[in-house]
Parts: sequence; structure tokens; C-alpha cells
Amino acid sequence: MNILDDLKYNEQGLIPAIVQDATSGRVLMMAWMNRESLERTLEIGEMVYWSRSRRELWHKGATSGHTQKVIDLAFDCDRDALLARVEQVGAACHEGYQSCFFRSIQSGEPVVTEERLVDPEKVYGKAAQ
Amino acid sequence: MNILDDLKYNEQGLIPAIVQDATSGRVLMMAWMNRESLERTLEIGEMVYWSRSRRELWHKGATSGHTQKVIDLAFDCDRDALLARVEQVGAACHEGYQSCFFRSIQSGEPVVTEERLVDPEKVYGKAAQ
Repeated sequence: MNILDDLKYNEQGLIPAIVQDATSGRVLMMAWMNRESLERTLEIGEMVYWSRSRRELWHKGATSGHTQKVIDLAFDCDRDALLARVEQVGAACHEGYQSCFFRSIQSGEPVVTEERLVDPEKVYGKAAQ
Repeated sequence: MNILDDLKYNEQGLIPAIVQDATSGRVLMMAWMNRESLERTLEIGEMVYWSRSRRELWHKGATSGHTQKVIDLAFDCDRDALLARVEQVGAACHEGYQSCFFRSIQSGEPVVTEERLVDPEKVYGKAAQ
């Protein structure tokens, strides 16, 4: 059996993927994959997700250049979550931070915990959000 | 506004939580939280999830002793995922591994990539699965 058939996708056919910088260990983002995006990821060696908002395959970095080279792709004991260790080019977050998890809850308040790496307007243009 | 009201829960009222060992950086597991489990987590300083199978709050380690002390709790740019950095006692995975992500896909095949830390039968008894 193909291992991709053995994973558990949710009712939308999706499985969550945690993305970690293979060098620093920083958790960069979480996104969703479907079977097709997983096949494409394994084929090209770069992370390809399923964009739930645009309802299409999303080759991360195709526009920004901030690609994610796959170093290792693991799955959990329940087979319903993935962990990708990647080489991240530039910033993972569309807001210009290294990690999407740039805010923490401290004493009940949101606190920004890292510096912005790049200006998102320069990467995505003013229309970016 | 309470920051917990500002997070995006899915249609089941849940938000995914990535759990990372604060010292080693190893990603240990992914589980789901609801607003109540988040409040309880912040209150006691240990990870409390929502068990989707048992449909109840799940204080990780209450049975096994393998608790997770919260060091930092971050949320992502879309406010629909959490990253908890924790001090993990013992093994995070109910199968006895440090991490639930103990298998990787290599050349299309599942490969176990870490040693078992503990015998699950000794922690949870023979009925464990």
C-alpha cells in the first residue's frame, strides 16, 4: 500500500502539516495538505500545500521566492498530522516574520516575540494581505 | 478583548496546538484545544487538550505522569493555530516514543527514526492503545 493512502485525511480530504526549520528548529508555520499536494511535494522536493481560501494547490514561495526545500517528512502515531523539516528561504510568514508564530500570550496579552525579517510590501506588493 | 476570544476556532470550536520540547526543539505532537482547555492550560500551567475521541478535557499526563509544563504559548498570524513550547516529562507519545512523529516517509516508505523511550504497557497498562 502506498503510504499516502495510509494517512488519515479529514472530511475535507486534508491533513495538517507542521513546518519546522531543519537547521534552527524554529517552528515556522502550519498549513494543510491534500493527497495531491503531498504527491507534488514528494515529486519536486519543495512544500506544496492546499490553499483552503483559494481552493488550489499552493507551491509555497512560487511568488515570493521563499521556498521550502523538504529535508524530512514525518507523520504522527495517529497518521493524522505531518511534520516537515525544511530549508526555508527568507521568511516563512507572509507578514515578513521568520515564523508565523511571532506572537505569544503573556499574562493574557499578545506580545510580539521576534523581529520582522522583511517588509511584506517589498515581497508581495501593496495588495498583499 | 480577551485574547482567547480573538483566536479562530473551527466549526467544532477547536484550534490545533503544535507542541514542542522547549529545550531540544523536537516537535512532540499535535493535539486540539477548545476555549475551555486553553483557559485551564493557562490556569494550571500544564497542557490540557480537548480529546475528540473521548469528548472531554484531557490533562496530558494525568494518568501516565508525562505532563507538559507550559514555557511559552504562541499563536500564528492567522490566529488559527497554536505553538506550545513545553517541558515534557517522559515520553510525549502514547506509543512510548519521545515524539509522536517517530516515522518518516523515505523513498515512499515509512521508516522509524527514533528509539522507543518507554514501554507503553508499563505506563498505561495492557489495555492501552
